[in-house]
Amino acid sequence: MERHHFEDELQVLKQRLLGMGALVEDRVHQAVTALIERRLGLAEQIAGGDQEVNELQIEIDDRCLKLLALQQPMATDLRLITAAMKINADLERIGDQAVNIAQNVIKILPQPPLRPTIDIPRMAQITQSMTRDSLDAFVKKDAVLARKVLKRDDEVDQLKDQVFRVLLTYMMADPGTIERALSLILISRNLERIADHATNIAEDVIFLVEAKDVRHHHEERVTP
Amino acid sequence: MERHHFEDELQVLKQRLLGMGALVEDRVHQAVTALIERRLGLAEQIAGGDQEVNELQIEIDDRCLKLLALQQPMATDLRLITAAMKINADLERIGDQAVNIAQNVIKILPQPPLRPTIDIPRMAQITQSMTRDSLDAFVKKDAVLARKVLKRDDEVDQLKDQVFRVLLTYMMADPGTIERALSLILISRNLERIADHATNIAEDVIFLVEAKDVRHHHEERVTP
Repeated sequence: MERHHFEDELQVLKQRLLGMGALVEDRVHQAVTALIERRLGLAEQIAGGDQEVNELQIEIDDRCLKLLALQQPMATDLRLITAAMKINADLERIGDQAVNIAQNVIKILPQPPLRPTIDIPRMAQITQSMTRDSLDAFVKKDAVLARKVLKRDDEVDQLKDQVFRVLLTYMMADPGTIERALSLILISRNLERIADHATNIAEDVIFLVEAKDVRHHHEERVTP
Repeated sequence: MERHHFEDELQVLKQRLLGMGALVEDRVHQAVTALIERRLGLAEQIAGGDQEVNELQIEIDDRCLKLLALQQPMATDLRLITAAMKINADLERIGDQAVNIAQNVIKILPQPPLRPTIDIPRMAQITQSMTRDSLDAFVKKDAVLARKVLKRDDEVDQLKDQVFRVLLTYMMADPGTIERALSLILISRNLERIADHATNIAEDVIFLVEAKDVRHHHEERVTP
């Protein structure tokens, strides 16, 4: 493979990863929309399958392996491609979380609403922007943007704790709310996992750009 | 790097991954032991830090990048090394779950026990053996063993649902149990995540051995 062809292939790889990111982000958004707007059909659609995500993941993985095999890239390109493989895995797992959220929404919807807004829409919003920014940071090799993503992970953790406390109070006051409250707690954990994946991506970007391993200087991301 | 040197380096890489696996498996075991034997000190120790896990992860990642850069491996070796990188990331996240479990244990222990055994020790046992077997399957390139790991993921999901149902009953009957029951539910989710990581590793092994992507023919692993 010639150098300029290799560069073209790297561009295609980046575009595919952005496409994968947009796709899973949209699926998370739809799963949360199904909760807020109480749309069972939408939840069932998201829970029903992520074939498109899965196919894209396999395609991106193949591209990476081929680039590694054919070009035998050195240094920066090598790190870029291995980072792309890891990011691809994180994006696929964000897609899994969209399915998990939708499954929890399906459990909740038959019951009357339980102040369904709490802080979940806000959590969803932040995790979405974290996913998008971590990928932008990758494509632009922007470590500053990646570090901002790490910071927002703490915000998500705080919201998660807040959701937990509020719902705990509900459950204690009225055991009739326990099942619904539990499903909302699980959804907030699904969103937290998405934030963790975005954080992983941001850490990969910083490692890529600065050849410096920040993964374990950000211990806050480990939360129960 | 000469061929036999490369083979030696691959052996070292495999040994390091096994060591990483043993380490995180042990930490999960200790976190669950802290719950069952009500040992706050042990829980605090596990929650306190996974420095050793983190250092080992970075070392293994470095080894992989160097092998990719120096040897420019083709075909099978290339897949082996990229699989090692992914497996390394999954093992590190199993280590994160040990910390998360220990943090939940710290919340539970000050309160009187709530039939603490339920099915959590059984779940822990299965996830541990899944982790170990998925790594054995990697080292031995044993797709049959890897497929057995995939099967056991369903068993973990069933136990997780069972734990959930039992604890839900407790909470409904006695709101005084809600906090403890919630922490146990979260621990069962932490264990489920460990099973998911072991499943990811097993899928990587099957892809490595059979050059066939099974990742998305095992849809059952997506659970809320």
